Amino acid sequence: MAQVATDSAMVALGELNLPNRLLLGPGPCNVDPRVLLSSAAPQLGHLDPVLLKIMEETAALLRWMFQTNNEMTLCVSGSGFSGAEAVLTNLLEEGDTILVGNVGYFSGQIAEISRRAGAHVVNLPVEWGQPMEAAQLERAFQEYPHAKIFATVIAETSTGLHQPLADLERVTHAHNALFVVDAVCGLGGIPINVDEMKIDACYSGSQKCLGALPGLAPVTLNERAVQAIQNRRKPVQSYYLDLQLLNRYWNGDHFYHHTICSNLIYGMREALRIAMEEGLEARWARHQLHGDALKAGIEALGLKIYTQPGCALPVLTAVYLPEQANELAIRQQLLSEYDIEISGGLGQLKGRLLRIGMMGYNANRKSVDTLLAALEHVLPRCGVQVTPGAALAAADKVYHSR
Amino acid sequence: MAQVATDSAMVALGELNLPNRLLLGPGPCNVDPRVLLSSAAPQLGHLDPVLLKIMEETAALLRWMFQTNNEMTLCVSGSGFSGAEAVLTNLLEEGDTILVGNVGYFSGQIAEISRRAGAHVVNLPVEWGQPMEAAQLERAFQEYPHAKIFATVIAETSTGLHQPLADLERVTHAHNALFVVDAVCGLGGIPINVDEMKIDACYSGSQKCLGALPGLAPVTLNERAVQAIQNRRKPVQSYYLDLQLLNRYWNGDHFYHHTICSNLIYGMREALRIAMEEGLEARWARHQLHGDALKAGIEALGLKIYTQPGCALPVLTAVYLPEQANELAIRQQLLSEYDIEISGGLGQLKGRLLRIGMMGYNANRKSVDTLLAALEHVLPRCGVQVTPGAALAAADKVYHSR
Repeated sequence: MAQVATDSAMVALGELNLPNRLLLGPGPCNVDPRVLLSSAAPQLGHLDPVLLKIMEETAALLRWMFQTNNEMTLCVSGSGFSGAEAVLTNLLEEGDTILVGNVGYFSGQIAEISRRAGAHVVNLPVEWGQPMEAAQLERAFQEYPHAKIFATVIAETSTGLHQPLADLERVTHAHNALFVVDAVCGLGGIPINVDEMKIDACYSGSQKCLGALPGLAPVTLNERAVQAIQNRRKPVQSYYLDLQLLNRYWNGDHFYHHTICSNLIYGMREALRIAMEEGLEARWARHQLHGDALKAGIEALGLKIYTQPGCALPVLTAVYLPEQANELAIRQQLLSEYDIEISGGLGQLKGRLLRIGMMGYNANRKSVDTLLAALEHVLPRCGVQVTPGAALAAADKVYHSR
Repeated sequence: MAQVATDSAMVALGELNLPNRLLLGPGPCNVDPRVLLSSAAPQLGHLDPVLLKIMEETAALLRWMFQTNNEMTLCVSGSGFSGAEAVLTNLLEEGDTILVGNVGYFSGQIAEISRRAGAHVVNLPVEWGQPMEAAQLERAFQEYPHAKIFATVIAETSTGLHQPLADLERVTHAHNALFVVDAVCGLGGIPINVDEMKIDACYSGSQKCLGALPGLAPVTLNERAVQAIQNRRKPVQSYYLDLQLLNRYWNGDHFYHHTICSNLIYGMREALRIAMEEGLEARWARHQLHGDALKAGIEALGLKIYTQPGCALPVLTAVYLPEQANELAIRQQLLSEYDIEISGGLGQLKGRLLRIGMMGYNANRKSVDTLLAALEHVLPRCGVQVTPGAALAAADKVYHSR
């Protein structure tokens, strides 16, 4: 066996030398300096009454953000996927049937998580970039009338899809199933009114439109969903993600469940306060404006929006590249020459998409203009010809039209 | 239905006003300001080559900290329990038998997590405060010769036990089972040499003796444990905690698994660098010194150490209170008058113990003297008579004897 590294062999590791990236991928995004500063504040113990008060305030702010009165509203201590897994594995028991509205990579992960939990997963594939039709869901319920859950995403980060939910909700509830929505990418950037939209369980992530650091997954479940958890025959497969225990810690008698990171909670509370100062309607409008300006610029560059017209997210723009484009080179040059991160396509769209986020703190004109200028410079070297000056002019036109 | 809170109803929530606690409970502990500062550095995306390099360095530092050459060494994105659950649910399949050396609350949680995963759990209870005897384990293996795992803790936070592992390891491997050790409380504070101690899988937490922020759970698994995972008949129940996917992200081709919190990673790397500067032997000796000084002071106050003599942890001291003591009042007064957090007993020891941590950045003379002085002041008001001046003198004697 090789010898284990000794102290002296490793002291050469220097201090952190970090680039200052403009994070315009699908998340994480840059956060308001107020969030970073609050994350560096002195820690509190996970049962400190001061922290418990801060958590109560954070849960109240999250209810406002989700537009819900659900008591079970809290953050799972983990990434967005931990929120997805918490919601799905608490609601599902072995053998339960879940219908998955699979409109892209992240809704596909709903199937993956549910399958591992022992559920019977009925995958309802939809062509990527398009929303699911209610008729497809209705047919699935005809075939699986006892399905317990229909789950899909409102904002599919892999394709830039803003999926209309009203008809899907109606069909789901007509068949007495639970309506579960992945809002990892959307919450704080597009209208999501959990109570009004009759969503039974909804989960999100901290690092996208909410504008907090990664590491927390806000979730909210209504009485009907809570009842489904209470009616389980067997305990939830996971202690760490057990929502009843988490809810007791967050919203009940604060009984010890795990050691929460106070610093991430400080940042989440601060991010939600910033959102509160802005107001929800204004925040949604801001994301719409800069998303529209970006898309106008992208199209003026001669590039296509991948997503079906009328269903494109403002917060995440999926750009379909022409055959000859070198997607990897575009991203690498943006990163190395401009310190700008954007993302590529996932799964079947690997190499064919650019995915650009305009989320939270980054959803502003500086981001739009900086990126368009950089793309105008980088694209011709990566196989894509552009008309100089057209992109910024097109974005400018959007800004002047509002 | 009650109306959802509107923007204007909640803007009253002010900025954070935090107390500056001295965290002397069983964790989290205060961290070095270098860790807090690095946590406030600009974020990086979870696939940024700079972050991937930082993660590689962090994994190398963790191998040094664990004293192992295990390739599968990484942080789970969650609290210590997420590390426990990752290790146990990856190794266990439905119907597998696990023997649990239950020496306190946290080893009890091993049973809870394993049961939820569908394993057959054989609970081997030991009187709290005492270590497990090899003979008890040997008898259990006679009864359950096909047990797949024996798991226990090295540092039982609920009782202050430093459990000797050598005999338990020998028995476990004589029966071809996997030797799994919970080192949430110990890593970085007491000698834990994973390879030398022949531990097959070990997990820890970031916020105790390691001196980083909560929210990461370091784990390490050797080839034998990895083989057990690869031999599974069914996929791991959890996507979020799937160690093969996590290892691919951390130590393989960095394939996307989840959005890691770069800021927590910065802090972990910085905490490990600080440990590296100190050196492992020196770090263990420091924890031993201040743990000893604290215990001398506690005994001079007329209080008893709960743990069996010879098996008491330096990093966590469990103090057994006399019948008439008001445990809650002691902790509340320390918190409100001194901004000092210590902890009480868990489970069957609720109300009967004080649990005091001397871990990581906090394991120093200032912490010891500050706490002893505060206790001398607070205890008489909570039903415990003390001899003035005796505690600090006793601690001083320890400091002068080394």
